[in-house]
Amino acid sequence: MTARRFAIGVDYGTNSCRTLIADADTGEEIATHVCPYPSGTLGILLDDRDPNLARQNPADYSHSFFSSVRKAVALAKKARGFSPDLVAGIGVDTTGSTPIPVDKQGTPLAAMKEFRDDPAAQAWLWKDHTSHAEAAEITEKARQHPDKYLTKCGMTYSSEWYWSKLLHCRRTSPKVFEAAWSWVEMADFIPAWLTGNPDPAALARCVCAAGHKAMYHEDWGGLPSREFLASLDPALAELRDRYRAPALTADKAVGKLAPEIARKVGLPAGIPVAAGAFDAHMGAVGAGIRPGVLVKILGTSTCDMMVAPAETKLPDIPGLCGIVPGSIVPGMYGLEAGQSAVGDIFAWFARHLCPPEHARGSDPQAGLTRAAAKLRPGQSGLLALDWNNGNRTILVDPLLTGLLLGQTLHTTAAEVYRALIEATAFGALTIIRRFEEYGVQVREVVNCGGIAEKNDLVMQIYADVCNRPMKVSRSAQTCALGAAIFGAVAGGAWPDVPAAQKKMTGLKPRAFQPDPGAARVYAELYALYRRLHDAFGTASGSGPMHDVMKRLIAIRDRERKGA
Amino acid sequence: MTARRFAIGVDYGTNSCRTLIADADTGEEIATHVCPYPSGTLGILLDDRDPNLARQNPADYSHSFFSSVRKAVALAKKARGFSPDLVAGIGVDTTGSTPIPVDKQGTPLAAMKEFRDDPAAQAWLWKDHTSHAEAAEITEKARQHPDKYLTKCGMTYSSEWYWSKLLHCRRTSPKVFEAAWSWVEMADFIPAWLTGNPDPAALARCVCAAGHKAMYHEDWGGLPSREFLASLDPALAELRDRYRAPALTADKAVGKLAPEIARKVGLPAGIPVAAGAFDAHMGAVGAGIRPGVLVKILGTSTCDMMVAPAETKLPDIPGLCGIVPGSIVPGMYGLEAGQSAVGDIFAWFARHLCPPEHARGSDPQAGLTRAAAKLRPGQSGLLALDWNNGNRTILVDPLLTGLLLGQTLHTTAAEVYRALIEATAFGALTIIRRFEEYGVQVREVVNCGGIAEKNDLVMQIYADVCNRPMKVSRSAQTCALGAAIFGAVAGGAWPDVPAAQKKMTGLKPRAFQPDPGAARVYAELYALYRRLHDAFGTASGSGPMHDVMKRLIAIRDRERKGA
Repeated sequence: MTARRFAIGVDYGTNSCRTLIADADTGEEIATHVCPYPSGTLGILLDDRDPNLARQNPADYSHSFFSSVRKAVALAKKARGFSPDLVAGIGVDTTGSTPIPVDKQGTPLAAMKEFRDDPAAQAWLWKDHTSHAEAAEITEKARQHPDKYLTKCGMTYSSEWYWSKLLHCRRTSPKVFEAAWSWVEMADFIPAWLTGNPDPAALARCVCAAGHKAMYHEDWGGLPSREFLASLDPALAELRDRYRAPALTADKAVGKLAPEIARKVGLPAGIPVAAGAFDAHMGAVGAGIRPGVLVKILGTSTCDMMVAPAETKLPDIPGLCGIVPGSIVPGMYGLEAGQSAVGDIFAWFARHLCPPEHARGSDPQAGLTRAAAKLRPGQSGLLALDWNNGNRTILVDPLLTGLLLGQTLHTTAAEVYRALIEATAFGALTIIRRFEEYGVQVREVVNCGGIAEKNDLVMQIYADVCNRPMKVSRSAQTCALGAAIFGAVAGGAWPDVPAAQKKMTGLKPRAFQPDPGAARVYAELYALYRRLHDAFGTASGSGPMHDVMKRLIAIRDRERKGA
Repeated sequence: MTARRFAIGVDYGTNSCRTLIADADTGEEIATHVCPYPSGTLGILLDDRDPNLARQNPADYSHSFFSSVRKAVALAKKARGFSPDLVAGIGVDTTGSTPIPVDKQGTPLAAMKEFRDDPAAQAWLWKDHTSHAEAAEITEKARQHPDKYLTKCGMTYSSEWYWSKLLHCRRTSPKVFEAAWSWVEMADFIPAWLTGNPDPAALARCVCAAGHKAMYHEDWGGLPSREFLASLDPALAELRDRYRAPALTADKAVGKLAPEIARKVGLPAGIPVAAGAFDAHMGAVGAGIRPGVLVKILGTSTCDMMVAPAETKLPDIPGLCGIVPGSIVPGMYGLEAGQSAVGDIFAWFARHLCPPEHARGSDPQAGLTRAAAKLRPGQSGLLALDWNNGNRTILVDPLLTGLLLGQTLHTTAAEVYRALIEATAFGALTIIRRFEEYGVQVREVVNCGGIAEKNDLVMQIYADVCNRPMKVSRSAQTCALGAAIFGAVAGGAWPDVPAAQKKMTGLKPRAFQPDPGAARVYAELYALYRRLHDAFGTASGSGPMHDVMKRLIAIRDRERKGA
């Protein structure tokens, strides 16, 4: 019998860093530890005057690495068969696009006294939306460009993404922009730092961040052309040359764990460290993604991911957030879709519109869920659109808002709550249909994330609305498990990601099966949902209502400014 | 100096009977007393198995008359200058259409042992909706009839109305129908009973009930033809002959107060009793209605009433509930419109969707109103349709439901509550515009009813949305005051209703003036409201969404039956 092998996954979320130590042969989760980021509000630096601003202190990333890995290793040592010497590799996933301005040595500007308190010098967290004007400008220019840079990212460039943020900094914080020799995605920054190679011109850029957020694609030779970037701002063109190509997939090691870091966490130096990737993508791997399997990460919003073999003749699919070779599983196309708000909509309703009868106790959603579970499909007469935070896939339109229809004088809170769950399920089905319309068959759906773990009603409604079984990932921490899988592969424990997945991932025994009667009712309701969706969401829809929500937003923004 | 003169108004509402004794020269309100109906739930006989059923015990009507008039007279005696001998006349208003099945002597069947517990033998309260199938059948047949019976009632015959209820009884309770020699509207039954002339063939039928609820109109010689009624059911044709014509306006006395009733309430026998009319119509008179003045009675729903001089060449106005000569002010056309739910929508929201922060205390609407009053027009980004109970005017469609649009993840309960108030204001404006589109100019708006009395925010929003001053009636009990006015006229204290109104009605000193800035924003929002209204409410609207709400209702009803 050979010795056991282990892999470490480090998952950098929005508010905390989680370390997971897993058996590299079975996926068994030996130890885990979470360290919240110490700075700001739940780890986020906010600005009272600008609700769009969301930054992070890069020092939190090293602090939380040391704390969570050290404690996870200490815990693992108590498990039979574990020894730090048996760790084959380390993988890292992060949020993104979360670019960090760094100097020529790769040190974050935020670490310098001069910039310590300057928000522009911090990490620009994925959900920072200060750059919406720049995003619109980039979208406009990229649409007209012969290289069709937007075809791989759903035809709209987001304010959350790399170039929008850099351009906004250039325009609003020129001092920081001047001082930044380069901007490094958090997913690239952490592995580079762990391996002692922070030089921004030399460090590996991962395909995941490059392809999904920086318009990197082989079809046009990597990043967008110098000439295109210069048309946005000449300074961006210079940055292009400081971005190492080709970008790496996360099954490749970028180096070995540096001795001074290894010592602090109780690991031997020299453990291979994999290239980084985004949390959702590694989460999809940890949930067992493979061709034909849609992985849904269900949280405040969703990521809906698929992969397609490299030999597939894949069309551009309108509305997807991205189609990037190797971004999820190396050697396959990674396809990413998503819903802008799911859990966030339920939480909004529970926070703002839940009457005392359900609001009692610490979790109003539990009461609402119990009451909603007693209702039958269709019996409320309600129908909602799931656009309270805009629509990511398939409309790619942040200027859409919620809609609720069918209220009477007897409509109850539980009925509305259920209608909102159903609306997100209709949104989920719309994504499945979009994949299939473009030839990407969805043969299996695997759910993970907090909602999949905790809310059986949501899972059952998704099964009934989509008329397919809803399976749930065995691991409750698929992102960290996915990072461990990449660590294992980069460290040579497995020849490739699918081989590692076969052993290290799995499903919970219980799948949610569609009820045929419910599915029939939901098929009728979906037809009506789709009519509202097309009428309010598309210029070519069946009704000319496309501008209604936008006009209301314009009036709202004007009147709020006037206040 | 001549002696003072007084008039008594008796207002039969949905849950109680109110007596008001007023000075016939000044309108001063000397004494008032309210007696709740003793039977059922708040005076209404309900059926757990059928939410459409709403009946009343006719014995409650005499009981509450005796109780409230006796106590009001006793109170008035304490006022300087009052004496029962100085009462010039008595007027009565009631709900309607509230038909009562009676025997050949005019005794309600409900008074007989055999029928005492039979719901069909009781008074069929206006809001009884058991007859919706019959209403649809009558609408269908009347639409095809050459006499155009529906042109005076908005082209749709309601399940709340006389013939629908009779036909439903004929089909579902044949024993009661057989035993009923005639059916008498409550507005006719009370004056006939007070004057000791209950014979159903001889008692006066008032133009208000006849014209608004029984398709009575001089254009086709009174009630619909025997042949038309026979096409619904031969038994209805027979009832036509037991309905005295012509119908009377309420300024005419139907007789004198019978001695045995007078004795019980402390009044002299022989006081003239006016013909009856509906509460809203007498309320409009009590609020000072005259040509150019729209009177809005704002309660759970609204009645919006106007009058036009008899010499006006008045077109049929689509969507109005009725256009009836003399139904409000004798000698003028009475025009009636309305909104199916106003206060009911606010109460629904407060009951079902109000979070604990506002729900504290006895009146959640007070907290919601305070928070909503701090918001500016347009700043929530929300827009709603006021159709939670269908739409009475201008769409005349009970199969419409509510709609709320523009929600984000930050939308608050106070914002939604304000959007609902605004929606009812947009509905109010739609009615004003419909009057004016057909040549009936609205030069002044006078509001009355509970909401006008109590909710300044609603009144201000109505002023801003309609961009007109909102005035409020001086009297808080305009229905009872209107009944007293008719009593005064029928008793000879005044030659006609306008002369009595000039002295007996008035306005509160404070009118709500439109704010020009708010009016500009609301003009923009109304344009969007109107697009949703037309798209979802009309087959010819700007978008083909007309069937969406109806389909949801059909699915809802089917699924509830299946439960």
